[in-house]
Amino acid sequence: MTAENRRWVLAERPVGMVDDETLRLETAERPSAGPRQAVARVRWLSVDPTIRTWMDDRPGYLPPIGLGEVVRGAGLAEIVESRTDRYAVGDVVYGMTGWQDYVVAGEGEAALTVIPPVVEAGAMLSVLGVNGMTAWFGLLEVGDLRQGDTVVVSGAAGATGSLVGQIAKLKGAGKVVGIAGSEEKCAWVTSALGFDAAVDYRHEDVAAALRRHCPGGIDLYFDNVGGEILDTCLAQMAMRGRVVLCGAISQYNAAGRPPGLVNVVNLIPRRGRMEGFIILDYIERFPSAQLELAAWLGEGRLVHAEHVVRGLEHAPEALNVLFTGENTGKVVVEL
Amino acid sequence: MTAENRRWVLAERPVGMVDDETLRLETAERPSAGPRQAVARVRWLSVDPTIRTWMDDRPGYLPPIGLGEVVRGAGLAEIVESRTDRYAVGDVVYGMTGWQDYVVAGEGEAALTVIPPVVEAGAMLSVLGVNGMTAWFGLLEVGDLRQGDTVVVSGAAGATGSLVGQIAKLKGAGKVVGIAGSEEKCAWVTSALGFDAAVDYRHEDVAAALRRHCPGGIDLYFDNVGGEILDTCLAQMAMRGRVVLCGAISQYNAAGRPPGLVNVVNLIPRRGRMEGFIILDYIERFPSAQLELAAWLGEGRLVHAEHVVRGLEHAPEALNVLFTGENTGKVVVEL
Repeated sequence: MTAENRRWVLAERPVGMVDDETLRLETAERPSAGPRQAVARVRWLSVDPTIRTWMDDRPGYLPPIGLGEVVRGAGLAEIVESRTDRYAVGDVVYGMTGWQDYVVAGEGEAALTVIPPVVEAGAMLSVLGVNGMTAWFGLLEVGDLRQGDTVVVSGAAGATGSLVGQIAKLKGAGKVVGIAGSEEKCAWVTSALGFDAAVDYRHEDVAAALRRHCPGGIDLYFDNVGGEILDTCLAQMAMRGRVVLCGAISQYNAAGRPPGLVNVVNLIPRRGRMEGFIILDYIERFPSAQLELAAWLGEGRLVHAEHVVRGLEHAPEALNVLFTGENTGKVVVEL
Repeated sequence: MTAENRRWVLAERPVGMVDDETLRLETAERPSAGPRQAVARVRWLSVDPTIRTWMDDRPGYLPPIGLGEVVRGAGLAEIVESRTDRYAVGDVVYGMTGWQDYVVAGEGEAALTVIPPVVEAGAMLSVLGVNGMTAWFGLLEVGDLRQGDTVVVSGAAGATGSLVGQIAKLKGAGKVVGIAGSEEKCAWVTSALGFDAAVDYRHEDVAAALRRHCPGGIDLYFDNVGGEILDTCLAQMAMRGRVVLCGAISQYNAAGRPPGLVNVVNLIPRRGRMEGFIILDYIERFPSAQLELAAWLGEGRLVHAEHVVRGLEHAPEALNVLFTGENTGKVVVEL
């Protein structure tokens, strides 16, 4: 255990991708636990596209990260000092640790949840973490998945998209088509994850491929990317189709006005619905979803993959990996 | 009664506004009633933006009007010959009469509904017709209007928009703001219809005006126009706001790619919903809505206005009035 706490703070608001000027790695003293508090050593960081949106000075579902503040983000940590009954030294905890070596938990500080020791870090950060929850509630609640639905999901080789397709199959979808950014990702999505088909948006005509794979139209489109792919899917929705707006990764680094959607009007004759959601609203129902996902994990019915970046010092590059699309599966930083 | 039937048929598909080449006024023989049929003389035509969409060769909620076919449209007619118990000579009937002098009703032909003689033509074509039904089910069902909602409606001086705002007030909306295309229309909307405020989109900064009138954001936006105004409202939706996609009159004559919507992504942090609908889906529930609307009409609690164009020969100009925005209230053709 070192006596130092390294932490990434927001130095300036990014325009486009995060670069060398955006974040600053500071070194502070290792924090101590006050009364009814504990200190945890961060072991893993969950690297999610939404972190990029918190760096903009725009109203969102959480306040923007302030200049000089530690970058907000979920992670797994281990309790190394405790002055509360809630945490014992050695406990593995999950929650908003931030991008730093040590985090204070307990009264007035981060609310971290103790994780059963049998749960493996990768599964906790993806299937049982924000991605699994997002896929589950987005698909089943917001998207109202129905038996036999033709489901399309973008970002299909990403942490959330890869789970959306698998959960859809397990819950009775008729056909699941993934959209991803390379031939390798498409091969992974169909062979390892069991999607019925995949479209490589960098090398294929997405509209033509979707017409081929979904001749009856799309019943449920789970959108992780926004922009042009969303617009293409809007043009091919089936009657009473549902568009789940989960994220818009293609837009988060956009500087200037993007081209915009022209096919929203198609929702009128098709009686379509498009709805956005934030997974925090479902937090009280996470345990029931986690239970079923954990059971499937145990049965080997869910596949997950991690793209591991080693060292807190590389966290900013890990974030950019999400936008260049080098990752297959969940991006995590191992400290 | 003449022995001729004049009828407007689709001569070619329009690009942009309907012009002299689009439609052709043909003269045919006056039809006769076959067994279990009746013939009605058309008295009024309901001129609606959706008619323009039927002229395009695009899949929609109804098949496109075929080349050489009579222009589809609702109207009021009077039975002049009957060989069925369903209709008596002198009955006033409502339904899809088409743009012609005479229409055959009954077996294998148009299904026309007999209207009580006390109902005045203008009210039947607007409040109790497609516009009233569209306003009612769009606002209350699709939009899920709630007590105290801040409601914004575009096309506020139009046949549907003017009813949306009035029904919203009668059903407990907290504040109703209309968007219309002139100072006169705005004055009519606030003084005659009782909207709380109106924005003249041709002469005001709509975004700034909406921020002023709806400081807490928009709970329900009833969209009749699409395009830029829809995008402006999307940027100002309140938490869990609902966008009702009713029509997109700004787009129906568009040739080439419009600028597109960039604020759909805002539905994610605001947990917003956007939904399209077609009023035909609610046809079995029309009577209950008509009953309440008729009661309000009787009590003088609903205002309606008609922009009357005289003569079947001027029907194409009447359609274009909707797009140039010369009308206040319902556009009708009196034959």
